Amino acid sequence: MAKINHRRSRKAGLPPGSLVHIGEKRAERAKITIMDYDGETFQEKEAKSVEECFSFKETATVTWINIDGVHDSGLVGKLGSHFGVHPLILEDIMTTAQRPKMEDLGDYIYVVLRMLSSEKGKDGVFSEQVSLILGPNFVISFQESAGGDVFDPVRDRIRTGKGRLRTLGPDYLAYALVDSIVDNYFLVLEKLGERVEVLEEELVTDPDQKTLHEMHALKREMIYVRRSVWPLREVINGLERAESPLIKQTTGIFLRDVYDHTIQVIDTVETYRDMLSGMLDIYLSSVSNRMNQVMKVLTIIATIFIPLTFIAGVYGMNFRWMPELEWRWGYFLIVGIMLAIGILMVIYFRRKRWM
Amino acid sequence: MAKINHRRSRKAGLPPGSLVHIGEKRAERAKITIMDYDGETFQEKEAKSVEECFSFKETATVTWINIDGVHDSGLVGKLGSHFGVHPLILEDIMTTAQRPKMEDLGDYIYVVLRMLSSEKGKDGVFSEQVSLILGPNFVISFQESAGGDVFDPVRDRIRTGKGRLRTLGPDYLAYALVDSIVDNYFLVLEKLGERVEVLEEELVTDPDQKTLHEMHALKREMIYVRRSVWPLREVINGLERAESPLIKQTTGIFLRDVYDHTIQVIDTVETYRDMLSGMLDIYLSSVSNRMNQVMKVLTIIATIFIPLTFIAGVYGMNFRWMPELEWRWGYFLIVGIMLAIGILMVIYFRRKRWM
Amino acid sequence: MAKINHRRSRKAGLPPGSLVHIGEKRAERAKITIMDYDGETFQEKEAKSVEECFSFKETATVTWINIDGVHDSGLVGKLGSHFGVHPLILEDIMTTAQRPKMEDLGDYIYVVLRMLSSEKGKDGVFSEQVSLILGPNFVISFQESAGGDVFDPVRDRIRTGKGRLRTLGPDYLAYALVDSIVDNYFLVLEKLGERVEVLEEELVTDPDQKTLHEMHALKREMIYVRRSVWPLREVINGLERAESPLIKQTTGIFLRDVYDHTIQVIDTVETYRDMLSGMLDIYLSSVSNRMNQVMKVLTIIATIFIPLTFIAGVYGMNFRWMPELEWRWGYFLIVGIMLAIGILMVIYFRRKRWM
Amino acid sequence: MAKINHRRSRKAGLPPGSLVHIGEKRAERAKITIMDYDGETFQEKEAKSVEECFSFKETATVTWINIDGVHDSGLVGKLGSHFGVHPLILEDIMTTAQRPKMEDLGDYIYVVLRMLSSEKGKDGVFSEQVSLILGPNFVISFQESAGGDVFDPVRDRIRTGKGRLRTLGPDYLAYALVDSIVDNYFLVLEKLGERVEVLEEELVTDPDQKTLHEMHALKREMIYVRRSVWPLREVINGLERAESPLIKQTTGIFLRDVYDHTIQVIDTVETYRDMLSGMLDIYLSSVSNRMNQVMKVLTIIATIFIPLTFIAGVYGMNFRWMPELEWRWGYFLIVGIMLAIGILMVIYFRRKRWM
Amino acid sequence: MAKINHRRSRKAGLPPGSLVHIGEKRAERAKITIMDYDGETFQEKEAKSVEECFSFKETATVTWINIDGVHDSGLVGKLGSHFGVHPLILEDIMTTAQRPKMEDLGDYIYVVLRMLSSEKGKDGVFSEQVSLILGPNFVISFQESAGGDVFDPVRDRIRTGKGRLRTLGPDYLAYALVDSIVDNYFLVLEKLGERVEVLEEELVTDPDQKTLHEMHALKREMIYVRRSVWPLREVINGLERAESPLIKQTTGIFLRDVYDHTIQVIDTVETYRDMLSGMLDIYLSSVSNRMNQVMKVLTIIATIFIPLTFIAGVYGMNFRWMPELEWRWGYFLIVGIMLAIGILMVIYFRRKRWM
Repeated sequence: MAKINHRRSRKAGLPPGSLVHIGEKRAERAKITIMDYDGETFQEKEAKSVEECFSFKETATVTWINIDGVHDSGLVGKLGSHFGVHPLILEDIMTTAQRPKMEDLGDYIYVVLRMLSSEKGKDGVFSEQVSLILGPNFVISFQESAGGDVFDPVRDRIRTGKGRLRTLGPDYLAYALVDSIVDNYFLVLEKLGERVEVLEEELVTDPDQKTLHEMHALKREMIYVRRSVWPLREVINGLERAESPLIKQTTGIFLRDVYDHTIQVIDTVETYRDMLSGMLDIYLSSVSNRMNQVMKVLTIIATIFIPLTFIAGVYGMNFRWMPELEWRWGYFLIVGIMLAIGILMVIYFRRKRWM
Repeated sequence: MAKINHRRSRKAGLPPGSLVHIGEKRAERAKITIMDYDGETFQEKEAKSVEECFSFKETATVTWINIDGVHDSGLVGKLGSHFGVHPLILEDIMTTAQRPKMEDLGDYIYVVLRMLSSEKGKDGVFSEQVSLILGPNFVISFQESAGGDVFDPVRDRIRTGKGRLRTLGPDYLAYALVDSIVDNYFLVLEKLGERVEVLEEELVTDPDQKTLHEMHALKREMIYVRRSVWPLREVINGLERAESPLIKQTTGIFLRDVYDHTIQVIDTVETYRDMLSGMLDIYLSSVSNRMNQVMKVLTIIATIFIPLTFIAGVYGMNFRWMPELEWRWGYFLIVGIMLAIGILMVIYFRRKRWM
Repeated sequence: MAKINHRRSRKAGLPPGSLVHIGEKRAERAKITIMDYDGETFQEKEAKSVEECFSFKETATVTWINIDGVHDSGLVGKLGSHFGVHPLILEDIMTTAQRPKMEDLGDYIYVVLRMLSSEKGKDGVFSEQVSLILGPNFVISFQESAGGDVFDPVRDRIRTGKGRLRTLGPDYLAYALVDSIVDNYFLVLEKLGERVEVLEEELVTDPDQKTLHEMHALKREMIYVRRSVWPLREVINGLERAESPLIKQTTGIFLRDVYDHTIQVIDTVETYRDMLSGMLDIYLSSVSNRMNQVMKVLTIIATIFIPLTFIAGVYGMNFRWMPELEWRWGYFLIVGIMLAIGILMVIYFRRKRWM
Repeated sequence: MAKINHRRSRKAGLPPGSLVHIGEKRAERAKITIMDYDGETFQEKEAKSVEECFSFKETATVTWINIDGVHDSGLVGKLGSHFGVHPLILEDIMTTAQRPKMEDLGDYIYVVLRMLSSEKGKDGVFSEQVSLILGPNFVISFQESAGGDVFDPVRDRIRTGKGRLRTLGPDYLAYALVDSIVDNYFLVLEKLGERVEVLEEELVTDPDQKTLHEMHALKREMIYVRRSVWPLREVINGLERAESPLIKQTTGIFLRDVYDHTIQVIDTVETYRDMLSGMLDIYLSSVSNRMNQVMKVLTIIATIFIPLTFIAGVYGMNFRWMPELEWRWGYFLIVGIMLAIGILMVIYFRRKRWM
Repeated sequence: MAKINHRRSRKAGLPPGSLVHIGEKRAERAKITIMDYDGETFQEKEAKSVEECFSFKETATVTWINIDGVHDSGLVGKLGSHFGVHPLILEDIMTTAQRPKMEDLGDYIYVVLRMLSSEKGKDGVFSEQVSLILGPNFVISFQESAGGDVFDPVRDRIRTGKGRLRTLGPDYLAYALVDSIVDNYFLVLEKLGERVEVLEEELVTDPDQKTLHEMHALKREMIYVRRSVWPLREVINGLERAESPLIKQTTGIFLRDVYDHTIQVIDTVETYRDMLSGMLDIYLSSVSNRMNQVMKVLTIIATIFIPLTFIAGVYGMNFRWMPELEWRWGYFLIVGIMLAIGILMVIYFRRKRWM
């Protein structure tokens, strides 16, 4: 799981708008890919230098510039200044612990959200910051690393020209990117949901200290997912209500759709949280119940034998005059009495439902 | 109980508006029934193909088309495109894990809600998604399966022509459908309420681990019902305030009535939740109390006999010179002392109210 | 205590506005009393049939018609249709599990609230639904049963002509009725408050399982009172802000006064709830504390005697060569050592503050 | 501590506006003091009868009439009717369990708040109701008893003519009175704060059942203070925003200042509440920890000696053929073995960190 | 940690606006430093007397007057009256327990916030009040003590003339000061975060009573940080929305940036709080789990030996006729039986998973 608190302090004291990368250190070079299309034409290429993108600013076609890696302040700075992005926005792009938010800056809209993923075969939720710049005829997206993203279906739709994507503007492209990120949340939630179910099973069959730690881990990840999703509601609401010419009215219904999905994700997270707290109660009660069972049985055994041992002790005393010791059947009588006492106690405990 | 999180992920990556059925797999064919009526005329038929419905779009009479089964994307798609329903709405209809919501799309109003039911003789709440399309002179309702629904009283009222239903428009029909779904919630709640009462009884007489699991199950179902009902408040409020010509003003007071019922359902759910948490406290306290009773009695027995066993042990020692052993009445004296100690301890514990 | 969830389901499937009585079955006939007055004149009578009330609809004097018993759908239906009350409102009047609410229907205002009472010498809170119809020159009040109500002081004020009541309109009468219901809440709260105080006392002196059940019962009743009072706030606020000609401006300050009382009732209920949860903590801690005391003392006794019993056991062994056994003062020495060990352990436990 | 619920029920059934004193019975006569001043003149006197105040209603100077004791309905009634105060307001003044509130009645503003105090050397918070009537050129204040109040500094400032008080109008005087009441809350909070700190100390050194009861008592008083302070926020906000000519604009900044103080008081109360719940957790954990320590040590002692006693028991058996008994060093060997077992167990428990 | 409740009571009774220092007593003299700059010129000096600042009020350049120490009422008073600051504001400056707030007084804007710091190598959060007066061409900042502050980077930027600071007005300077305070919160949070992580580690490896106290301490500090940060949100929001000519529109985007940081700080604090409560659950469960482990093992040992000791006791009885005692292999038989019982019990306990 990504750390909750990045070493943001590295930047304390620098003037605002300083481009310093805050996040995990990365060595690889940033990767720039460009997709340029309209209803008829389509071109896709990987740019070697940031300058290759510049020409696309003025074209009439829709351009999607995707940057994998935001640790290169030179690249981000050049791109930003050519496309007229405010330094504070560039700073936000490079500081990879942003809370999802949306800002309408007139010439362009800036959206930052978190892409969640859960590795195959492993537990834990991983999170990456994705920034989008929506301009009049371009969308620039910034991702933290070149590792896989969730945009491939969007790329395929652009390449094949299926669906509305090629015929609609950059706002629809931005929506499609946001939509694929939100759709991916369902995948992450399903995995969390499976773990919740496994835990619930375990709770009935064989709860131990590990179950508790797993519960705690799940709860932490829920907190984490929640932190990523809650502010998204506002973000998408903001996009829907933005009175910006950059977002056409026809995109509104699609944004409302993503909004509904977001609500559903939040709803599910809250339900899981409720279930987890319920499970904690069950767990604590199960553990103490099992412990009580053990203690009870053991205590009962001890309790039955203690009076019997006392009787044996009495006839182990060395008094000279103890008439019973001389009796012919004394021993068998006493052993019989002991047996009787033992059996009566067992019956009593049974009747009291203590056994 | 239906699963909280459907395999929504099957759709991740598809363009928005793709008609893929998300929900339980079903084999049976979708069933289409049509009721067409006004004050005087009435006709009812089961359509063999979806095309049979098309002619009803333009008639002046009120038409209710009910589709049982939303897994057939061909059917839903054709119907949708003939009646001018937006692809995103069709997608919502087929994705059977929607949160209740209401959308006014100008030409028609889309309402999605959840029909709850509890099988006879079985515990657990089952949920089915119901979508309504309210057009100028028709209502189309989509249900997940052909299994029984709660609309039969509405059908009877249409058939017999009793009440206002035949003389009022499609908005009243839509209201009547929503109303019968909400009325059904009371049935479900009553069943839950009975289980709460049974639990409360059990809590006093004989609580065990099963009681706890039943409490947990009830709590989960409450969460589930709550998830279905909470958003309904907004939905009906939205219908009431919709400034749409599709909803006549006279229907307002009826919507306010359903709204009140919804509030009452929410209220009852919250009360049950409060009662359940109170019962959890009682349960935990009862269990630990009973355990304590057992432990206490057993410990007391042990405590009385341990000092006595010690005394017996002392006179079981083999020292050559132990004057008491030689006394004529030594044995009886010691047994008497033991008895006295035992009785004194019992009296002491009684007085301290430990027994 | 009245049941939380009435068998509302009896009505599922009936068209809205069907007059079916939902509530406890009652055999007695409904009782109708009429008070008609203005500044000078006053008349009071018990009506034998509902038709006797009809003539009062058009008179200039203020008329208060009080119906005890809402289980007679014929009576309610006739009265309603003569005074022009909407069928849905009549349905609400007969369904005696309404949440307090207020509806302004233009020609009249409908208010439903709950009258709470606590029987003398018995615990528990009882609740009855009271519906008020405030028309231009009449007030109709519906109660569930003919058993005592809290309106007698209002009746006396009308009869004697004291105070403002005779000189002011029907809105002031409606206010007076609401006010006497809210005033009565204080009586109920005082009784609950006394029980809270008794419980608090018991908690210090001698808490047992019964105390816990009483706490739980009180908590339930608090939930119940809260359910009746919370929505009242909105109701009275609604009356105060209603821009209806039926409520004169001079009545506003009186409504604000009842509003303040309602807030105070809610406040008190919340305080009691807070106190009850605090008491639950105290209770659980007291119980476990007492248990711990018992266990500790008993364990200490056992612990002191176990090592001593061991020593006695050692000298009870039958080895041929055990030199101590032959010593002249061996027995006394060992008994002395045992005494010393016992005393040292007591001192040690004392110093550790375990005893 | 004052009772939470006064015997308000004494008034149930009386018409609204009836002047009945609700609160603690008091025998002493009400005391009336008058201060009349403007920038130049100043006079102060104690009135023998209520009529002496009447002349001050029309003077141009600012008049402050302070009534100590609201149990005399004659006095309050006469004063009220001369100064034109609504009967419902007079009723509120005499009912000493009001929630703080503010009402603008056009000709005058009515403010009711609670004066808190904590007696020297004693625990517990005491509360008294203070009502203020702010008219165009007078302020009338009502207190419950003649016992000390917190207004002396205001009186001194009027007498000496220091500060702005003499030169500003009655609204500033009303502000000064409210301000001195709020300032006094800090004193009460400091005392509560000290008790919280003492408790925190006790928690570390030597927590016992008394600590718990003190925690509970503090929590109750916090609830009490909170009830007095929370509504005050609204009250002062209401005064600040009142568009009444009675409150000059220049007083606004002073009211904002009191408002800030109120927020700070609420903040502190909430912090104390948070701390108290944290302390409850610590307490419960400490107590169970100490208990566990005791149980553990005692159990360990028992556990070590039980196997040893068994061995001794074995060699106390009276079988004819037990070879060990005949060995020359058998006794010493067995005692040695016992010692070894004991020591090994101690080492084992140590290593497991159970001792 | 600074005390939550300063001895504010020292001021009760004084007229509002009285300049009395509330806070820790300080002996050192207040220190005044002045920085005066515009795009071209820059001067910096330490003022010996407060009068030296007065001339800067009217200059066209931006002036930053920083006062270290607010305990000198003469200094604060003179400065305030020259720069036209309202006495109530001066009072707030000297009362060092203010809640962060912002007030627009027309001629100047007053902002008060809390500077948090955590000493190197020590735990605990320290807090100091910082007041800012933003005038048309000056900023006055008041700090509690001359000890280090977090403004050095701002000073450096002014001195070196790097960045926008020198070319923009006093509103940007005020923003820069607020920004450096908020940036510093991240440092404090990182330190708290490290302690949370250390605690989490400890929880898994070796939780003890100290862990609990550290948790409690952290929780308290979280409450403390939260109290400082929550109101800040409103403050910065207020600045952003202030329709004051003192804040230029270009500063808006920077304020929005600080606002985002504030939200992030709050978010992190809330996450830590959530984690801490989760950890408390884990802790309590771990402790009781460990205790249970100990008790269980020890009880099992006792339980195995008690029946064996009983058997030994039986054959230690001194009856004359006990046939087994005469058997040749009796002793070995009985020892064998004891062994068998012991082994069977171990197997049984193992199978039941009690060992």
